[in-house]
Amino acid sequence: MTFAAGVEVTQHPEGQKGVDSLAALVADDLQAVNRLILDRMQSPVALIPQLAGHIIAAGGKRLRPILTLAASRLCGYQGRRHICLAACVEFIHTATLLHDDVVDQSNLRRGLSTANAVWGNQPSVLVGDFLFSRAFQLMVADGSLKVLKILSDASAVIAEGEVQQLMTANDMRTTEEAYLQVVSAKTAALFSAACRIGAVVADRPEAEEIALREYGRNFGIAFQLVDDVLDFSARQADLGKTVGDDFREGKITLPVILAVRRADMAERAFWRRCLEELEQTDEDLEHAIALMNRHGALDDCMALARQYGATARAAVSVFPDSPVRREIVDLIDFCVERRY
Amino acid sequence: MTFAAGVEVTQHPEGQKGVDSLAALVADDLQAVNRLILDRMQSPVALIPQLAGHIIAAGGKRLRPILTLAASRLCGYQGRRHICLAACVEFIHTATLLHDDVVDQSNLRRGLSTANAVWGNQPSVLVGDFLFSRAFQLMVADGSLKVLKILSDASAVIAEGEVQQLMTANDMRTTEEAYLQVVSAKTAALFSAACRIGAVVADRPEAEEIALREYGRNFGIAFQLVDDVLDFSARQADLGKTVGDDFREGKITLPVILAVRRADMAERAFWRRCLEELEQTDEDLEHAIALMNRHGALDDCMALARQYGATARAAVSVFPDSPVRREIVDLIDFCVERRY
Repeated sequence: MTFAAGVEVTQHPEGQKGVDSLAALVADDLQAVNRLILDRMQSPVALIPQLAGHIIAAGGKRLRPILTLAASRLCGYQGRRHICLAACVEFIHTATLLHDDVVDQSNLRRGLSTANAVWGNQPSVLVGDFLFSRAFQLMVADGSLKVLKILSDASAVIAEGEVQQLMTANDMRTTEEAYLQVVSAKTAALFSAACRIGAVVADRPEAEEIALREYGRNFGIAFQLVDDVLDFSARQADLGKTVGDDFREGKITLPVILAVRRADMAERAFWRRCLEELEQTDEDLEHAIALMNRHGALDDCMALARQYGATARAAVSVFPDSPVRREIVDLIDFCVERRY
Repeated sequence: MTFAAGVEVTQHPEGQKGVDSLAALVADDLQAVNRLILDRMQSPVALIPQLAGHIIAAGGKRLRPILTLAASRLCGYQGRRHICLAACVEFIHTATLLHDDVVDQSNLRRGLSTANAVWGNQPSVLVGDFLFSRAFQLMVADGSLKVLKILSDASAVIAEGEVQQLMTANDMRTTEEAYLQVVSAKTAALFSAACRIGAVVADRPEAEEIALREYGRNFGIAFQLVDDVLDFSARQADLGKTVGDDFREGKITLPVILAVRRADMAERAFWRRCLEELEQTDEDLEHAIALMNRHGALDDCMALARQYGATARAAVSVFPDSPVRREIVDLIDFCVERRY
């Protein structure tokens, strides 16, 4: 997949198929979304399209706008509003990525340098604000107060989730429940909103809106669980970012929570040193992964991800069988079983 | 003035009168705005109301929401929507303050430590995003697409102005025109929007909307010009932040542009060293101020501020004389002649 202006999007050899075949089904719409994104990220202030173009290209596979396009297709929508709303969703996502990378002090995203690594934190914060504002301008142009409510609610919840994640970092007392709250907020809220507005533009009954909302929510949680597993289990070259980033920052994700829960005294001291005191040596990541494997922490996370995936699958069963429904369901498995 | 939750807002002994007497005129409404702000900054994530409460208390005199309240009063508005919209304006302002302080690495705002100095950059970025989202949630609850358009447009313009300011920093070739563009965007856009929505809620004819928009825009430019002069001319104790902050960061404000334009070779070398190379000694700020005074740079900035103030005054002459119009006009002089 190449993005306009000739920026090559990093390709992953395996696992991309699920997104790709759904993307192929909505290819014309997705092209229109990409054109709109390119058009609406422009500004007379030259650094804005430069930096925004970088993150939008690096941001990846357009999963969230594809969900909006697919959901509206699933609802039989025939108009053009879903193009604009899919672009809104991607702008909100991109704004949060820019701010996330500043907050996490990340240097790599999908195999490319992060915007903060190239241009510094200052423009990353401000261009994030710009893209966020642009998202709202696009929604206002669309004119649906219901969509505006769904996406402004999602934005507030995302920010809450990000702050809560910050508060649980380096705190080994973080529970599985608190972790799932963070994931529901920082990741699943936008997946859920992206899917739900597909039913809203199509003006479908509430049952379908709820079905898509729940599909998105559960898929989003599954997606993030796998993300958090991959931070320990992926091969560096596949991941396109540094393996063990979460560990080095002392983020308390579910693999850690399960491993800590099953730790003996010595292991507990190891986790405390690494995650709370952030005193780490080069070998610690490998040891952490070995402990997780010993206690089945990564496997159990994957099992939970598959459970959420199954709930997502069940949610869309209210829709009659169709090629797009099949792709939407297959997407879950592809994302859960992905290697990057 | 005390803000809810017992946080004392920093008082300035002189010059506050203009804002205070306008605030007194809309006192009940302003109290309702403060209550709404306090209510809507809440979140189950404890750090959010802590940090938001700090910046909202430190944010000062509520100038922008007061403008919304006063403008709607000037338009004869009798309803309650202006309360909610004034709170939106303050939330947007507060979000930009949080991000500004991160970008500028500021430690002091109105005599209090900045949020980034107390809690670090990470939560400041994220709570800014939260407040920005809250602003849009409030607007959506209000339900006016016109207001949503005005404030989302303003937000995008503010972000553009901030990025442009970043690009002109440390660049002595920055022109007066470029400076005024930055000021129009980063400061005047929100003043303008805050005033304009007063006419919008009151459903007044376009002429009044334009009058208030232009009042806000010109007042905002005057306000920022004075702010940039005060960074060189204020007494530290009055300013409530560090004098010379702009100079130390190499921000190219109008006092600098005028002084550079009138500089001889030696002075030019001085400015280049201080602002472009950021090689400064303790005496440089004093020397910079002396050069500005020698060339009349600060006086000329003040003269320009008064010109914009006069344009603002002329704009509201379409409204019949009334106590609130008189206060709105007096506010210009107070803000232009303020010492902090």
